[in-house]
Amino acid sequence: MGDLVERLAQGLGEGAVAVDPDVTAAYAHDMAGFCEAGRPAVVVFPETVEQVRHVLRTATDLRVPVVPQGARTGLSGGANAVDGCILLSMTRMNRILEIDPVNRIAVVEPGVVNAELSRAAAGHGLAYPPDPSSWESCTIGGNIGTGAGGLCCVKYGTTSEYVLGLDVVLADGRLLTTGRRTAKGVAGYDLTRLLVGSEGTLAVVVRAVLALRPAPPPQLVLAAEFRSTDEACAAVCEVMAKGYTPSLMELMDSTTVRAVNEMARMGLPESTRALLLVAFDGPDQRREVAEVAALCDAAGASGVVPAEDRAESDLLLQARRLSLPAMERLGTTMIDDVAVPRSRLAEMLTGVAAIAERQRLTIGMVAHAGDGNTHPVVIFDAGDAEETARARGSFDEIMALGLELGGTVTGEHGVGLLKREWLARELGPVGLELQRQIKAVFDPLGILNPGKTL
Amino acid sequence: MGDLVERLAQGLGEGAVAVDPDVTAAYAHDMAGFCEAGRPAVVVFPETVEQVRHVLRTATDLRVPVVPQGARTGLSGGANAVDGCILLSMTRMNRILEIDPVNRIAVVEPGVVNAELSRAAAGHGLAYPPDPSSWESCTIGGNIGTGAGGLCCVKYGTTSEYVLGLDVVLADGRLLTTGRRTAKGVAGYDLTRLLVGSEGTLAVVVRAVLALRPAPPPQLVLAAEFRSTDEACAAVCEVMAKGYTPSLMELMDSTTVRAVNEMARMGLPESTRALLLVAFDGPDQRREVAEVAALCDAAGASGVVPAEDRAESDLLLQARRLSLPAMERLGTTMIDDVAVPRSRLAEMLTGVAAIAERQRLTIGMVAHAGDGNTHPVVIFDAGDAEETARARGSFDEIMALGLELGGTVTGEHGVGLLKREWLARELGPVGLELQRQIKAVFDPLGILNPGKTL
Repeated sequence: MGDLVERLAQGLGEGAVAVDPDVTAAYAHDMAGFCEAGRPAVVVFPETVEQVRHVLRTATDLRVPVVPQGARTGLSGGANAVDGCILLSMTRMNRILEIDPVNRIAVVEPGVVNAELSRAAAGHGLAYPPDPSSWESCTIGGNIGTGAGGLCCVKYGTTSEYVLGLDVVLADGRLLTTGRRTAKGVAGYDLTRLLVGSEGTLAVVVRAVLALRPAPPPQLVLAAEFRSTDEACAAVCEVMAKGYTPSLMELMDSTTVRAVNEMARMGLPESTRALLLVAFDGPDQRREVAEVAALCDAAGASGVVPAEDRAESDLLLQARRLSLPAMERLGTTMIDDVAVPRSRLAEMLTGVAAIAERQRLTIGMVAHAGDGNTHPVVIFDAGDAEETARARGSFDEIMALGLELGGTVTGEHGVGLLKREWLARELGPVGLELQRQIKAVFDPLGILNPGKTL
Repeated sequence: MGDLVERLAQGLGEGAVAVDPDVTAAYAHDMAGFCEAGRPAVVVFPETVEQVRHVLRTATDLRVPVVPQGARTGLSGGANAVDGCILLSMTRMNRILEIDPVNRIAVVEPGVVNAELSRAAAGHGLAYPPDPSSWESCTIGGNIGTGAGGLCCVKYGTTSEYVLGLDVVLADGRLLTTGRRTAKGVAGYDLTRLLVGSEGTLAVVVRAVLALRPAPPPQLVLAAEFRSTDEACAAVCEVMAKGYTPSLMELMDSTTVRAVNEMARMGLPESTRALLLVAFDGPDQRREVAEVAALCDAAGASGVVPAEDRAESDLLLQARRLSLPAMERLGTTMIDDVAVPRSRLAEMLTGVAAIAERQRLTIGMVAHAGDGNTHPVVIFDAGDAEETARARGSFDEIMALGLELGGTVTGEHGVGLLKREWLARELGPVGLELQRQIKAVFDPLGILNPGKTL
């Protein structure tokens, strides 16, 4: 290990190599529960592409595993240390290199925080849509690693839609440029999108060319209360079947609503079984909100409240954003991320409620309802081994239910450590074999984030 | 060969195997110029997934190359026969299996014609945006193979944005399902998008899950005449920098305008050096058209004509759609497909004009200007060997210019046979090596569309 640290230090700047066990332990895991983390040998903080190449060349020479990390806000253990690894923190490569309004692109280093890019783009009348809950702290590199989504996706899609080109360092230190700066391009296989969502198992992103969009007007939000999740989900399907394109369509169940009220005294309606938030950001937003309000009414909503203005809209969005922190006050939480076809959303919600009852647990539900992407939040007492086992069991049952309904075990959080076995079930043997062979093409020694995803 | 045909016939239906040399020769090439085609052994027309698997198992057993084909409207020789190959025509697998308005997806077989899917989607108030010029005859399988674009891309993106999941048959006959039916999903590497644009070199698509969108209102089109391509391109940049999102932004040069007038007596302004068409399809289209008209005026347009109504808009769109057939009347045509950052579009157009002058050729120019995707059309006398050589030379110079301006050698037509050498230049040695290794993962015997792309 002395040799490893010495070799790393030779090519890195002052203060870029940390071996103090307190420091390395602090970097050993992301925000996922139920995931082991190993003991890292060292944490490095490169500031240039050449330094990243040095780290990977060293790792290849010495056959040491490398775990790339952004802000470690991930929820699947993808950034967790493995024993003896180099933790490769990309947080100091955090420059926005270019914002180009004519070509509507940004060129950034991977350590740029999502919200910083959004603010910089806003300065040019532009937006970078992907907005995961952690957007104030997560990095673009991490977003690319997981293929991150957020609240915007029902209208604007996920990270994959916004990555045009990448510079990545391969496991052996070679530099690869993929993709383009142009709006279109089909030259060769789409390695860019192969890399998006690959969770640091194929290469290390050191630069990204991202598409930007014109900044939309502020959203106008409608809140609709329903007496059952079935009715709420039927309204979601109806909105989509009628051809509306909301900029956001979120669902919070009664557990979530109560938790938010408790935390922030928002005065949300606690008797509701499902609170649906629907927003529009186009020039016709008032008409659209009014029409969807009528539609929710007809679908049996017990109350429909269109926001009068931006302040009211922001308050409703804030309630949604507080859902997870609010539930974290109720116990240890374990957030899942199962997406189903939106036509199956009602069955998914009913099924999760049945799992909660069977396992005698509280499972709060927030969902990007427009995308059919549910985030069941299992709440339990981590000090109680038996309850923890039931929590873990319910987590697995939720994934099984998602697959049964034609869905996927991860809509936007990634596989990491948490869902490896489930990925294998979802892919099947042929898909799994091909994915493993592709991994071997990029990383023949298996040093890049080993044990994750596949 | 007797053995091959016999084995193929055993698993295929009546009339699904053609060996008549006149028939096989008729299927031997797509619509690309400058591309050799080999002599196929046989053309097969499977109608089921099992039949496709049978064809590929047979090909693997006998080590016979397979060239998958759609409607053979491609422009890069990607569907051209190689000597002794099986031409695998997917045109009889042409069923639309499902259109699902709630989940906004279509499930189709690969031989479905693009326009047929569009019409079927329209029956549900939905649209399948990708609209290549050949949309009335090209197939979805071919569109997936090339990653096809069209006029819609400036607002709606290309085929890659609309493919959610695929069933493909691998070279050895195994069936692989990739992707999902859900709006979001990040489970494993994105093999779906790796397959889009892979030009039949990795696998054979037998089923696709496609995303649909609500059908937009008809477009309102503005035509603006400019005295120079520089001014027209500056207007394009200004429209985009000001945050507009046109549903179409096309440029036709004077050669194109004159050819269209000659063919269809459209009465387009022949004195113009660049005719720009800009369309909007949102609820604010009248305001947007008026504002962009004023913007073009300020950018020096010599004439600005906003369409009064849908009929006028359709006429302008028809003029654009006639550009290629109109130029085909002037001689043998060779259409290129180079995309540059839109900020470099003016340089690209000036550079192509200089190439035309130096090579003493007419090169008409149509461009998806909003995307920076140019289609220089080299017009020459194919009976004149010396002129043909100059045409070929100009084609290469155009690609070199595109790369020099930070662009790509193919925006939407694909690499095929035509641009293999240029792909290698664009990718560089590291990218090329990885792409070859990925090809080997999917097709270790190299029987799938050999000699294409890589």
